[in-house]
Amino acid sequence: MAEHRRSGHAKRAIYPGSFDPITNGHIDIINRGIAFFPKIIVAVLRNPRKATLFTVEERLDILREIFRKQPAVAVHAFDGLLADFAKSQGARVVIRGLRAVSDFEAEFQMALMNHELNPSLEILFMMPRARYTFLSSSIVKEVASRGGSVRALVPASVAARLREKFRRLGRS
Amino acid sequence: MAEHRRSGHAKRAIYPGSFDPITNGHIDIINRGIAFFPKIIVAVLRNPRKATLFTVEERLDILREIFRKQPAVAVHAFDGLLADFAKSQGARVVIRGLRAVSDFEAEFQMALMNHELNPSLEILFMMPRARYTFLSSSIVKEVASRGGSVRALVPASVAARLREKFRRLGRS
Amino acid sequence: MAEHRRSGHAKRAIYPGSFDPITNGHIDIINRGIAFFPKIIVAVLRNPRKATLFTVEERLDILREIFRKQPAVAVHAFDGLLADFAKSQGARVVIRGLRAVSDFEAEFQMALMNHELNPSLEILFMMPRARYTFLSSSIVKEVASRGGSVRALVPASVAARLREKFRRLGRS
Amino acid sequence: MAEHRRSGHAKRAIYPGSFDPITNGHIDIINRGIAFFPKIIVAVLRNPRKATLFTVEERLDILREIFRKQPAVAVHAFDGLLADFAKSQGARVVIRGLRAVSDFEAEFQMALMNHELNPSLEILFMMPRARYTFLSSSIVKEVASRGGSVRALVPASVAARLREKFRRLGRS
Amino acid sequence: MAEHRRSGHAKRAIYPGSFDPITNGHIDIINRGIAFFPKIIVAVLRNPRKATLFTVEERLDILREIFRKQPAVAVHAFDGLLADFAKSQGARVVIRGLRAVSDFEAEFQMALMNHELNPSLEILFMMPRARYTFLSSSIVKEVASRGGSVRALVPASVAARLREKFRRLGRS
Amino acid sequence: MAEHRRSGHAKRAIYPGSFDPITNGHIDIINRGIAFFPKIIVAVLRNPRKATLFTVEERLDILREIFRKQPAVAVHAFDGLLADFAKSQGARVVIRGLRAVSDFEAEFQMALMNHELNPSLEILFMMPRARYTFLSSSIVKEVASRGGSVRALVPASVAARLREKFRRLGRS
Repeated sequence: MAEHRRSGHAKRAIYPGSFDPITNGHIDIINRGIAFFPKIIVAVLRNPRKATLFTVEERLDILREIFRKQPAVAVHAFDGLLADFAKSQGARVVIRGLRAVSDFEAEFQMALMNHELNPSLEILFMMPRARYTFLSSSIVKEVASRGGSVRALVPASVAARLREKFRRLGRS
Repeated sequence: MAEHRRSGHAKRAIYPGSFDPITNGHIDIINRGIAFFPKIIVAVLRNPRKATLFTVEERLDILREIFRKQPAVAVHAFDGLLADFAKSQGARVVIRGLRAVSDFEAEFQMALMNHELNPSLEILFMMPRARYTFLSSSIVKEVASRGGSVRALVPASVAARLREKFRRLGRS
Repeated sequence: MAEHRRSGHAKRAIYPGSFDPITNGHIDIINRGIAFFPKIIVAVLRNPRKATLFTVEERLDILREIFRKQPAVAVHAFDGLLADFAKSQGARVVIRGLRAVSDFEAEFQMALMNHELNPSLEILFMMPRARYTFLSSSIVKEVASRGGSVRALVPASVAARLREKFRRLGRS
Repeated sequence: MAEHRRSGHAKRAIYPGSFDPITNGHIDIINRGIAFFPKIIVAVLRNPRKATLFTVEERLDILREIFRKQPAVAVHAFDGLLADFAKSQGARVVIRGLRAVSDFEAEFQMALMNHELNPSLEILFMMPRARYTFLSSSIVKEVASRGGSVRALVPASVAARLREKFRRLGRS
Repeated sequence: MAEHRRSGHAKRAIYPGSFDPITNGHIDIINRGIAFFPKIIVAVLRNPRKATLFTVEERLDILREIFRKQPAVAVHAFDGLLADFAKSQGARVVIRGLRAVSDFEAEFQMALMNHELNPSLEILFMMPRARYTFLSSSIVKEVASRGGSVRALVPASVAARLREKFRRLGRS
Repeated sequence: MAEHRRSGHAKRAIYPGSFDPITNGHIDIINRGIAFFPKIIVAVLRNPRKATLFTVEERLDILREIFRKQPAVAVHAFDGLLADFAKSQGARVVIRGLRAVSDFEAEFQMALMNHELNPSLEILFMMPRARYTFLSSSIVKEVASRGGSVRALVPASVAARLREKFRRLGRS
């Protein structure tokens, strides 16, 4: 029984984030995660109070295009509480990447809070490969906005969208 | 095939440490971990260059007594590299607890090094419940050595062994 | 004389902050602080350049309601420098809570700066109980804005005001 | 040859930042830096997406006034990538100050990213004197906006401009 | 009644440490502390398991000599738990200095543990003046052991004892 | 004159450390450093109070062998204060690598202390390449002591010496 419950729930993991935009570091976490979980739900947080470069719909598009050949990866948007979204998806695990001390503290706070809200939701943290320790969506946007090449940092489709986005915002 | 390999390997996780002695915080990590992994191998690191309060054999005894009714938890000692021990056990996952910024850095360094030595070994980190954030084997030994009660911090059998150990070392 | 000056000044402590809104963690610090200081002045910082959820007047209302039966706790708003406000209140002590490494650094910087501005103003730091280490006004607003329950995190009156605030802002 | 290349490039260092406004801590770093580099280019980052108190032109004015008698210090604005600006100036060294753990992480990330973009660009970090560890442009603006004296923290010309700026913004 | 209990207990604060040896930074904390507490008990921790440069008796001698003209400062050694020692002295407050992130974490852990052991014992933290942020007993010993002058870092009597100590250990 | 003094002194930099043993990360720092300084003095700290795996003489041998074809790199041992050693070598610059938050704090403390002892000694910090962020002498010894391969982490000559050292200490 416990075994059944366990294997049933443990099959799905949520990987939540803003993904504004997704980077090669995120993709590495997802690809490593599917070694443990047959299903990973990449969950884009809707947050009307936070300014983003790409709309939620653009981000869903980008993600679905990247993972279209990986049935183990599903892509959804969510609002409300992560704890509630996980429950609605029948998932009891959340995957998060940890990159720096400041990540660590924010994640620790979020983990403790989520445990308050849903004690059966477990958060597992993964650390990036050495070559991705410097990589974040913010730094990708910063480089792209200044005309730098981000081809080594994000998938080609994301690099193209960043170029177009910043061209429209007034840079070539 | 990939699925088979995956599920086969993902069944076993290693939880390595000194466990000198095990605390309620460690036990909480193990109990939460068996929700994801049908088998957790608690692996006591043999380190002849590091002074410990309990011998490796005493620590194995303590651990086996605590988990004797949980067939999902196995207890072993190991020397050599964690990467090699994991391979010998058919395990591709290592579980670690993260409690503080200093933990985080040491763990990050170790994770990157282990990835160098065995790229297929994955390390998953869990954060303690709020009530265990202050708890470590060192602080338990410190309190016990000064005659304080550690009953809320470790299993009763460990508390008894600590009392006896420090009585022999010259306190009552 | 020195004794007189000391006891005179030491009687009042300032506890400054945004309190947008106050949490159970803040209240715990205040209640522990009044064991040392017969008078604690909860001082709400007016900062026209920082967007807040509650107006200064709403925050003063909330605080006065919470502490209306505790004559040892006074509630004021202030603008200008903390050092000047402390002087105007005849207080030589400031109480601050410390929760995380990032708090620590910001507080350290502020403490050094305040010492530059008013060398006789002393800042005393308290650490939260384990169960409040995850708690901040920001995380309370985040949870409430997503429809989660914050009843364990803030007084009932604050939970009610948060519900109403976010209902008006477009969530129910 | 290598010697020639080396000495040629090593002669110029970039000291980039927002300098909104420059503080005595920045000036100390520059003065210490010119002991090693015959030319230091103080480079003001143009960032249309970041709100600043002083315009780029005001900041260039302030800097040029402060260093007008030091031919070893040049003042420029730049947009685009730091790596590209350094190349355009024939500089292979960037100087940065490090003050706190949070600085350290952001700088580390930036250093790794810049190395990705321009492997021959080297970043050298300096730590502030003890008396400047608390000092930042933000805290200077905070104190000045609240009517505090910043004469010990910035050059007199900057203090005067801050007073005027905040007087116009509605404080005296 | 509550007032009586409060003022009664709040009169005495414990300042515990190794003081191996005391530095000007410690002395500054004590002198600032006696502005709040009419009695500060400097408490030297006996720890037979930790190697120190000065014996407990030497450290008590040094401390008593330094504070011989300050009746508000008492000097004691203690073993056992800090919580028990505080109780035996009728003190409900512990003062600690905080200097760096690593201090912060160790202190946080200790504060949470002490609260477990004695919920009525309160720990107040103070931050050092800017000029003492680099100062620790370890760095004083390091400098003195290498023949450097520590006259700006410790009282003259401590500097003399350090010189003599290291002369005996084989340096002049 | 100032120019003369400057260029004269700036020619030599000290790179101090234990180098027990040197790693590829240290070598990378040295090779990047000689782009700025025509002479780098690798300075092995003699510390009779600290246990090391290799003797000072073994470490000097290893270093001299590695840099025997690089006349820009000199190798020396020193005891006493770094500030005094730098003066005796006519060097006004010290180079240090920074890898982690804990490094940062210890280095910051050391930098402030060295400035107290010798205000004209400047310390420049460099950050490692991403692939060396996990690398330290300690982790190299840990891996080698457990029979792991360190060929990617240290020069071949160091790997051979580590194997021999640990074989003698009882592992093959």
